[in-house]
Amino acid sequence: MNDLAVPLRAIGGSRPRIDADLKVTGAARYTTDLELPRMLHAKTLRSPHAHARLASIDASAARTMPGVHAVITRDDLKGLNPTYGYFIKDMPIVAIDKVRYIGDPVAAVAAETEEQAVRALERIAVRYEELPTVATIEAALAPDAAALFETPQMGIVPAYGVGASGFKEPMKNVCYRFAYTFGDKAAFARADHVFTDEFRFSRLQHYFLEPFVALARVEAGQIELWTSTQSPFALRKELARVFNHPEQAIRIHVPLMGAGYGGKNNCKAEPIAILLAKLAGRPVRFCMTQEENFLTQSQHAAVHRLETAVAKDGRFIARRARVLLDAGAYSDASPLVAEKAGYRSHGPYRWEHVDSAADCVMTNTTPAGPFRGFGGTQASWASESQIDMIARRLGIDPVALRKKNLLKLREAYCPGESGMDSDLAEGLDVVCREIGYGRGEKKRGRGIGIAIGFKDSGGINKPAEAVVKVTTTGGIIINSGSIEIGQGVHSAYTRIVAELFNAPTERVSYAPINTDVTPYDQGTNASSGIVVMGVAVERAARACIDQVLAFAAEQLKCRADELRLDNWSVVKGNEAHPLMPMIMRKFGGTGYEFSGRGYFKAENDHHAPLETKCVSWEFGWGAAEVEVDEETGKVTVLQLVVSGDAGRAIDEAVCRGQDEGAAVMGLGQALFEGMQYEGPVLANLAAAKYRVPLASDLPERFRSITQEQGHGPGPFGSKGIGEGGLLPVAPAIANAIEDAVGVRISSLPLTPEKVLAALEAKRAAKR
Amino acid sequence: MNDLAVPLRAIGGSRPRIDADLKVTGAARYTTDLELPRMLHAKTLRSPHAHARLASIDASAARTMPGVHAVITRDDLKGLNPTYGYFIKDMPIVAIDKVRYIGDPVAAVAAETEEQAVRALERIAVRYEELPTVATIEAALAPDAAALFETPQMGIVPAYGVGASGFKEPMKNVCYRFAYTFGDKAAFARADHVFTDEFRFSRLQHYFLEPFVALARVEAGQIELWTSTQSPFALRKELARVFNHPEQAIRIHVPLMGAGYGGKNNCKAEPIAILLAKLAGRPVRFCMTQEENFLTQSQHAAVHRLETAVAKDGRFIARRARVLLDAGAYSDASPLVAEKAGYRSHGPYRWEHVDSAADCVMTNTTPAGPFRGFGGTQASWASESQIDMIARRLGIDPVALRKKNLLKLREAYCPGESGMDSDLAEGLDVVCREIGYGRGEKKRGRGIGIAIGFKDSGGINKPAEAVVKVTTTGGIIINSGSIEIGQGVHSAYTRIVAELFNAPTERVSYAPINTDVTPYDQGTNASSGIVVMGVAVERAARACIDQVLAFAAEQLKCRADELRLDNWSVVKGNEAHPLMPMIMRKFGGTGYEFSGRGYFKAENDHHAPLETKCVSWEFGWGAAEVEVDEETGKVTVLQLVVSGDAGRAIDEAVCRGQDEGAAVMGLGQALFEGMQYEGPVLANLAAAKYRVPLASDLPERFRSITQEQGHGPGPFGSKGIGEGGLLPVAPAIANAIEDAVGVRISSLPLTPEKVLAALEAKRAAKR
Repeated sequence: MNDLAVPLRAIGGSRPRIDADLKVTGAARYTTDLELPRMLHAKTLRSPHAHARLASIDASAARTMPGVHAVITRDDLKGLNPTYGYFIKDMPIVAIDKVRYIGDPVAAVAAETEEQAVRALERIAVRYEELPTVATIEAALAPDAAALFETPQMGIVPAYGVGASGFKEPMKNVCYRFAYTFGDKAAFARADHVFTDEFRFSRLQHYFLEPFVALARVEAGQIELWTSTQSPFALRKELARVFNHPEQAIRIHVPLMGAGYGGKNNCKAEPIAILLAKLAGRPVRFCMTQEENFLTQSQHAAVHRLETAVAKDGRFIARRARVLLDAGAYSDASPLVAEKAGYRSHGPYRWEHVDSAADCVMTNTTPAGPFRGFGGTQASWASESQIDMIARRLGIDPVALRKKNLLKLREAYCPGESGMDSDLAEGLDVVCREIGYGRGEKKRGRGIGIAIGFKDSGGINKPAEAVVKVTTTGGIIINSGSIEIGQGVHSAYTRIVAELFNAPTERVSYAPINTDVTPYDQGTNASSGIVVMGVAVERAARACIDQVLAFAAEQLKCRADELRLDNWSVVKGNEAHPLMPMIMRKFGGTGYEFSGRGYFKAENDHHAPLETKCVSWEFGWGAAEVEVDEETGKVTVLQLVVSGDAGRAIDEAVCRGQDEGAAVMGLGQALFEGMQYEGPVLANLAAAKYRVPLASDLPERFRSITQEQGHGPGPFGSKGIGEGGLLPVAPAIANAIEDAVGVRISSLPLTPEKVLAALEAKRAAKR
Repeated sequence: MNDLAVPLRAIGGSRPRIDADLKVTGAARYTTDLELPRMLHAKTLRSPHAHARLASIDASAARTMPGVHAVITRDDLKGLNPTYGYFIKDMPIVAIDKVRYIGDPVAAVAAETEEQAVRALERIAVRYEELPTVATIEAALAPDAAALFETPQMGIVPAYGVGASGFKEPMKNVCYRFAYTFGDKAAFARADHVFTDEFRFSRLQHYFLEPFVALARVEAGQIELWTSTQSPFALRKELARVFNHPEQAIRIHVPLMGAGYGGKNNCKAEPIAILLAKLAGRPVRFCMTQEENFLTQSQHAAVHRLETAVAKDGRFIARRARVLLDAGAYSDASPLVAEKAGYRSHGPYRWEHVDSAADCVMTNTTPAGPFRGFGGTQASWASESQIDMIARRLGIDPVALRKKNLLKLREAYCPGESGMDSDLAEGLDVVCREIGYGRGEKKRGRGIGIAIGFKDSGGINKPAEAVVKVTTTGGIIINSGSIEIGQGVHSAYTRIVAELFNAPTERVSYAPINTDVTPYDQGTNASSGIVVMGVAVERAARACIDQVLAFAAEQLKCRADELRLDNWSVVKGNEAHPLMPMIMRKFGGTGYEFSGRGYFKAENDHHAPLETKCVSWEFGWGAAEVEVDEETGKVTVLQLVVSGDAGRAIDEAVCRGQDEGAAVMGLGQALFEGMQYEGPVLANLAAAKYRVPLASDLPERFRSITQEQGHGPGPFGSKGIGEGGLLPVAPAIANAIEDAVGVRISSLPLTPEKVLAALEAKRAAKR
């Protein structure tokens, strides 16, 4: 199956995405596009204070305002479990005792129009008693810091993967610690050098075009929800708990999604929409503004301290990583991000000893959650920066140093883990070749940097199921819970299924997602679309085809293995037998639909620490050439090359789109993007103030190369892609800056100011 | 499983239907209740002529009327296969060359409001050239009759069951002939008596409270339809053909249904709604009026001629049946109804020879289609009337005559057929006992009549599939294509699944139906809900439970057969182990959903004439006591008893509701109900003019008895119910009239006029 020499028909090649027309013509239907009859509109009152006790709240005037049908304050949460979170249930639907960041929801209104809702919000009287704030990791960890939670948050966090909650004592403003180690720490003593460096990672905003939006109807004991979520089944479970409502009486529909980047998980707009709908007895739409998105979820800022022990020949010996993640005001998925950021800190290299810990630090800022790269971005930024620094300190070529230490194909990431499913050195050669690494003459002010982004793909444990059905006339319908976020799962699965059925892709459609009927999936996250659900879809299609062939064999009185499918005929020898008449003969009436079920789950139990095996590994090889203006500090990226390994590119356009989109996200973070806090105040809280990359920011030469190394565990040797392109960009550019002008910037973004300051410091040191 | 002595927990007993609250509070959502944003409304122009050539049609003025977004005439059918039908595709979306009955759709308009649509229809100029009409079976069969179709309709009709298309030569105004025989016709010669009688069956209107209604959206290559249909998958296939549209790009949703009675099958409101939606580029709702329902579909009027050969001791020897069904203007399901009416004509009795034929005769009247009882009503009316007449002619007690000839439990209906799965004599005793048959003194003008309604249940061939899922927290969701028509499948399946899971019924929900994701089903017809889909649901639940127990056994390191479910714990010995923590441990993240699939199909191929085996048999035993006013002919039903055999009553309230509802329908047909044609004009075309039974029409003593004989092939020994109660009512009352006053009325309804005329004729004959 993985033989790349075998030509495929529906897979690969340069073709438009299956959903291109739908998107380009605007016919695609997103949650934001939906309306229900008699639908009301919700608006939320948000805290102007970063930290305050909620002394009193009086919404009585709001309740009588024109068009108002329901109001929520803390007085309306009776009978609910009104707080939620992935592990630690600390985020209330609306503030109960305190507010913990500027933007914390305090009340919500459902009215006939958004304007009426806004006017009603203005009539809600809130009295706050302000408290001291902690706006940064350092402030939060100071001994005299104000505590966000009087009772430290120590919810039951299942140790994900190899880690374990690293501390048993509650610690102020730290909601979770991940700790992981292997090998003997004595290794440090054997090293020729130990380098200690600290890296700071800025905080991106997901900035999806489609904001958090949910449309809820509560009727006849049924909660029905249309929402932009990456994990409808997980959300259903959480909502069942929050609303004390039977899980089987919560139905979640997920239309197409206008991007998620990991942020659209667990409760966001949904609890307010549902509670208002329940109180109002009418459907409620709660669509946040872009500004509200900024106040709902962000990436994790981080401080990443690495102590790395190496032999003088450049051999890596040991690494100690201490990661502090800024979790913001509520825990959300922070524990999981900490596990990933900690566990990935030693990168895809060979070590004798690793000792990693990552703490989630609570601050009075927007809660941080999952973000494309999921801890791997932070880890790659720090690790790939430091490796480059070490190479330069030891006078070894950074590429050569990496190649010396890179894990080989099939080599385990660490004891008990699964092996690399890409040839890392091969990938490195691809980007080096493409950018012209080591070729040509070094020009003043110009430099080239290389980096390898690295994360797991598909998680360790996620079960996924799919059903593939084929109608009497040969129409194929995929039933899968994978959400089309823009990442192209519809295209990819369509091609996989069309390939297997030997049918044109036009014969395949993708069923809408509805938790009542869609096969179970834990969520569209972690580049799992191909290596987890993709396998379930492939197995479902094969199961369906097996049924069709077994049926046809029975009808033709032959063995199933004598038959093959050809566009809704079975071919036996040279004879094609159309299936439809055979089906009508056997099943009569109006025919039949064959359906196959596919299941995939890696063979890990959730609690099996040292036997964790990631399903697949995702890499993003990056190379950047920069020119640094030594007078102004301005960094111009002349070339940017990113490359992922798709194993087998199921849909080339989708793979490149993913890598390029991710790279542009990385470019923004590298050079200018980020949520800027002044104390607890988000200074660039506005779509217009938050600088995202524009087409004009693209480097003159911007290339992505989709490798097809063929070692992936997905269908036809494929593997996940989509996050990898983001990870190497910032370290590659930072490395290129050092290559260009000899200064190291270890905090993001790599602004002209920082570069200029570093250049001046370097000049001052020389003088 | 069928041991009726084993007490069940969720099944049986006198409890409210699962959906009682939903229905009683008005929260139930039907297709008529649905709205879509920007939805338009459709109205149809219908022919005022019963038979005419469509000389010209000009809709140009209508197209420019205010609010009008789309107009359909025959000029708008290009690119479609614009005619439909179950077998013979003869019914056009709108008239093409001719109109064939009063009410035949000629044009349709979609406008912002229904009023605007009506005003636009008024501006459509149609020129008709009238043609001679044939309004009755006799007129249609006359040698010089006008032909409805110039080319006789001889579509490919798959011979259903045992029959075969009985004629190969096209025959004017006959679209299908069913013919069936076994034994030797010489048997007639051996009989002591041959009785020949003719019976006339009137034509009911289905009269569902929810009319034909469809809501269509055509967008981005997808046809999406919400409609009140009993057979969404069959409809999808037909619409794919009509619209040349890929089957996988047609998505049909079916909300709760406000009754169907067999009439809501194949294309009704849907093609016009879809075509208008396609042309308008906006969703279109087409909701017919009750009057339009009268013009869309009806039951089959029939002439049933029986020649019955009996021995002088009352032993049945042979029967020849010649059935003429009035198919109306288009074929619809007439061939299937003919097969049923023909094949059932000899009733559940033992014969040496049977020879049946049934012709579908086309007339210029409303097309006739499936109707509760499905040919069995016509056959039972004729057969049970004649058997009573024969008893009286031979001086044998009618009950004794039946018992002498009734098939025994397990005895095959006819050669190669499946056996009786009820004890017919036992059922007869139930109603005889209840009505007091043979007890007390005969009073003048009073009489008791008995009849046995008989039809198959579940068809012969229908495949059905279901999925039952259970969530991490133990919520159970049934995925089945069985439509909740009011017949109680939601209640029945909920109880079956709750019983098997050992869970309260509150833990079970029923997923909405959507052809993209709902498991395949051929349709909610023919009392198949329990004996076909019910078995698939049971199997799905068992498959799901097996998975849960296998999983738990693995976790508890024991054998699955040591475990049993108890409300989302597994019990081993005396220890209960809650499942949720085990699931979280194994599957991590946010858990899992076990899902089991169940499939059922009787082992018949569609084309296997003499091996046909009906899945089950449905009986309705009926007894009526009447008082006949000899002065006026008025018949008062003093007592009416109906009884069905549910095998095992899964939901007693539902079983009784079905039997009683059916009996009232039968009572109406017996006494006064029926579509009255004056020539081709439907004289009682209006809800207010069409007389349906009222509460005040109920007999003073009206009883239904749900037998639980325990021999059914459905879950826990159950079998289908729901049509049987209709079948015996009219013959029982006719038999009671003869018992009361010695006159036989052989045409429905049994009006005072007919009774009086018969009494006068009898008096005249005596004089």
